[in-house]
Amino acid sequence: MTETTPQRRKKILVVSAHPEPRSLNASLTAFAVEHLRGAGHEVRVSDLHAMKWKATVDADDFPDHCADQRLDVLAAHERATPAGRLSPDIAAEQEKVRWSDAVILQFPMWWFSVPAILKGWFDRVFTYGFAHGPAVPPPYSEGALAGRRALVSVTIGARQSGFSDRGIHGRLADVLHPVQHGLFWFTGMAPLEPFALYGANGLPEERFEAAKREYALRLDGLFTDEPVPFRSLVGGDYDHDMRLLPDVEAPGTSSLDLHVRPGGR
Amino acid sequence: MTETTPQRRKKILVVSAHPEPRSLNASLTAFAVEHLRGAGHEVRVSDLHAMKWKATVDADDFPDHCADQRLDVLAAHERATPAGRLSPDIAAEQEKVRWSDAVILQFPMWWFSVPAILKGWFDRVFTYGFAHGPAVPPPYSEGALAGRRALVSVTIGARQSGFSDRGIHGRLADVLHPVQHGLFWFTGMAPLEPFALYGANGLPEERFEAAKREYALRLDGLFTDEPVPFRSLVGGDYDHDMRLLPDVEAPGTSSLDLHVRPGGR
Repeated sequence: MTETTPQRRKKILVVSAHPEPRSLNASLTAFAVEHLRGAGHEVRVSDLHAMKWKATVDADDFPDHCADQRLDVLAAHERATPAGRLSPDIAAEQEKVRWSDAVILQFPMWWFSVPAILKGWFDRVFTYGFAHGPAVPPPYSEGALAGRRALVSVTIGARQSGFSDRGIHGRLADVLHPVQHGLFWFTGMAPLEPFALYGANGLPEERFEAAKREYALRLDGLFTDEPVPFRSLVGGDYDHDMRLLPDVEAPGTSSLDLHVRPGGR
Repeated sequence: MTETTPQRRKKILVVSAHPEPRSLNASLTAFAVEHLRGAGHEVRVSDLHAMKWKATVDADDFPDHCADQRLDVLAAHERATPAGRLSPDIAAEQEKVRWSDAVILQFPMWWFSVPAILKGWFDRVFTYGFAHGPAVPPPYSEGALAGRRALVSVTIGARQSGFSDRGIHGRLADVLHPVQHGLFWFTGMAPLEPFALYGANGLPEERFEAAKREYALRLDGLFTDEPVPFRSLVGGDYDHDMRLLPDVEAPGTSSLDLHVRPGGR
């Protein structure tokens, strides 16, 4: 396969967030790892439950924090990150993200968002000083983590229609906006369209097989598919107050679509 | 004050999610508790960090779960909830929600969402069988928790312009859609417009005093302000696939605004 030639060999971090090792999510993680390695890539996995990942930001994240001191999380992140004084579990995850050419998040949608353990991976790993802040490039496209691809692979109990353009839950793109635009794009990572598996509770075997075939195509396109064309903060579309300039968007565009370049979605 | 007359006395649960007891968030929680009690209401507080709230859903949530059994979270919730076989920390929070006439969430916005410890409160407390599921009224307006008010009080480091109609982060209403519509409205609670304190890092004392005055007005209106007029699933606006019917919305409406009744926002 051409993918095994050196210049095509990429480094991929898969972050997986399900408590059950025999779950659909665990199966999709295992499938992705095998498929990507088969294509010649290097893959590392952060299985958050297996790692007993601590979800909550607190003073224990900062070995230098004095117990009687007021904990200002932003300031503590800003001090501890460049000093290499974050707790070792956080530092290890930052090293994996820095190492990677792409990050894949595998999770079940719970309450229209990521499970708490994965949110805790965002909160604790993407520190001020690592993923954003004055010492790194500005957010939204340039970003501290620019040059990386990002793919959400999500299982959803509900049916697809509820997440369609007129679906009551909101479009999947809107529901995942805090992750796709707020985490990935903000930090400079290029998010692909999410891979979503709907009706995922008690999934029949033949649907799982079909899902794997679909997912394989998305994994094959990880470095070649067109990312979601979010607008760049520094591309001339926004004013100094981070507001989209008048008349930049296509007529009739509103809400979160404002921040996608026309023709993009 | 008229609020102290028996029929006006209400029960309010404040859920607070910040690791530092001297933080702005802790101050806002303390202010809300004092203000609401001063108005004659009963108030209970879930200070998640003080409680050392476990953020992560896992087998320990289910005392009846056998270690060698596959953990299906939805099925486990559905079995354990009516049987009263959830872990005691979850059962205690469900009792508080059931007791309440209103729930207030106090949190700092981290990565365009709630902190992981609060997401873990959603994931673990709002079980299938308690907050949704076939045994309780259908979601979106009727809902298991109908009759309750819900208020988000959020501190945000960034400036307000970035969350305005054309702000790059997305409108605050869109960013909080997973909480306002996905958690509250889905379970039948009536969400009010969020109370947001922007530019919250290193807030000067005079801005904190102004914020308390503003917040007091919102607390005074907790049971009288108009909730966000989200559409009801059973109100005739949606088809059986949970899609908004054609021509129901005002011309030019798109995306998440589709699910708000015209004139509402």
